[in-house]
Amino acid sequence: MSNTQVIGIDFGGTSVKVAVVEGENLVTEIFRIDTQQHTGPDSLIEVIADKVEALRKDFPAVAAVGIGVPGAIDFAKGITYNLTNVKGWSNVPLRDIMAEKTGLPALMENDANCMAYAEYKYGAGQGYENVVCVTLGTGVGGGLILNGQLYRGAQYAAGEIGQMSIDHDGVDGPYGNNGALERYIGNRQISQLAAHYYQEAGAEVPGDISPENLAQLAGKGDPVAIKLWQNVAIYLGSCLMSTIYLLNPHAIVIGGGVAHAGDVLFAPLKDYLNRTLTGECFNELQILHARFGNTAGILGSSALAAELLD
Amino acid sequence: MSNTQVIGIDFGGTSVKVAVVEGENLVTEIFRIDTQQHTGPDSLIEVIADKVEALRKDFPAVAAVGIGVPGAIDFAKGITYNLTNVKGWSNVPLRDIMAEKTGLPALMENDANCMAYAEYKYGAGQGYENVVCVTLGTGVGGGLILNGQLYRGAQYAAGEIGQMSIDHDGVDGPYGNNGALERYIGNRQISQLAAHYYQEAGAEVPGDISPENLAQLAGKGDPVAIKLWQNVAIYLGSCLMSTIYLLNPHAIVIGGGVAHAGDVLFAPLKDYLNRTLTGECFNELQILHARFGNTAGILGSSALAAELLD
Repeated sequence: MSNTQVIGIDFGGTSVKVAVVEGENLVTEIFRIDTQQHTGPDSLIEVIADKVEALRKDFPAVAAVGIGVPGAIDFAKGITYNLTNVKGWSNVPLRDIMAEKTGLPALMENDANCMAYAEYKYGAGQGYENVVCVTLGTGVGGGLILNGQLYRGAQYAAGEIGQMSIDHDGVDGPYGNNGALERYIGNRQISQLAAHYYQEAGAEVPGDISPENLAQLAGKGDPVAIKLWQNVAIYLGSCLMSTIYLLNPHAIVIGGGVAHAGDVLFAPLKDYLNRTLTGECFNELQILHARFGNTAGILGSSALAAELLD
Repeated sequence: MSNTQVIGIDFGGTSVKVAVVEGENLVTEIFRIDTQQHTGPDSLIEVIADKVEALRKDFPAVAAVGIGVPGAIDFAKGITYNLTNVKGWSNVPLRDIMAEKTGLPALMENDANCMAYAEYKYGAGQGYENVVCVTLGTGVGGGLILNGQLYRGAQYAAGEIGQMSIDHDGVDGPYGNNGALERYIGNRQISQLAAHYYQEAGAEVPGDISPENLAQLAGKGDPVAIKLWQNVAIYLGSCLMSTIYLLNPHAIVIGGGVAHAGDVLFAPLKDYLNRTLTGECFNELQILHARFGNTAGILGSSALAAELLD
């Protein structure tokens, strides 16, 4: 029910963002709670619950609460396994704690799945039945919409695009998974690769080798930066090509900081996919920029929570 | 309806196999029509339709007909795009022709999807909601059961596991898709790799380097053959690892000729997946031998056709 008011919570390693949401619109500003000021779940949950309580006084129509969390969860039980960059969050039954403290129906989902669902429901992926969402940042995350539904997998762990291999004999991934994509195109790896290319070319390494600046340099015609993004496109393209041969989606939605590189990444990426896919898989494939940035987690968690009320 | 009688047809490059099926049981022998004796669709369709007609005289309860075909199709329209190893089959509306000629509800599906569905419905994948099926032979094929349904994708082209890349800088695949799995572990590639390993080891190359014989040699302790299968396990394992990180399935079902290698392939494959997957994805994962061989196509196409009657 898209005219229902729901509280969306995006639990991140830096801050927990909270807002009241109606459909795809935030009806309040985003309130931020500093995650790292709390040493464990108890005090942080208390502060979040207080914030929810305060919002409900102003928005008594709020009918559910959705929480996106940065890590592995048991979706059916509503329990966190462990959260990336947040200590002390193993086996916390966060969904039911929130439901109990607020008296509202609550839903908890992995943050990458929330982002994917937001793009599918209200963003770039709207109207497509099978959508692969990729988030490029410190790591590489993903979420899948298949046959019009968020696809979670057997242990709710599906969508780990960053752990897929692009080289069976490649660099070590975090789980011994050689050639893991995120070990090639995570933020840090892009900066390292850039430094390597500048040195190799006998050129001065720019003072700022953040992906953002490297994208600007490529946009201005810097040949080393252009080469860098062409190679990032091959790494990302190889993994997406495999994903497309497996899932034959209608659309690929690409978001996250690195996606802001824009055409310097997207043009060689589309070219790569055109060269390596059958016409059947490529011709009608949509390769899209994510619509939402910071608000994707809140919009996705609130959209999923709203469906509890259907 | 599993007590419904249905005609299952498995259209292959060598022969078209036809049988009456009830649930998972063939109620007739398998009748074979020589595919290559017919130069085009018209005469072959005629012979298939005649066979169906004759079977219906003996089995008047037959209520539907299912056809598995070796290649790309438009499932919604029931049209073949083009079939592998069979000439003259572009854009043939085979499903509707069969429905018209027989007066029965008809369904047409890709053969790899039929095999996957047979394994899910009656075979090794029974009882699992998310199943990845792989067929190892001349090429490498696949089919996906996701959330308890055959997953077809946007253009009904999903499941092309053999076209997924295991090396972004690897050998040329058929569509420019470098590192395509089937260019590493197709039957012919396994034989070539074996010849290479025997030569490299200074050992005599066996007269028979078929995958079947190479599996027997490994079973008898031949160190070169053992090394071969360990490497096949790495290639296959790398692709399955990526597939599992993406889809987090309950089960992987492996069939086709090469799968008969048995433990010489399965033991190092399980070891590889144990090493490279998170416990979350691996611990409850079932890695299974396909139950059906030659009958998988007939059982799958008839099972899908039977569901037309539900």
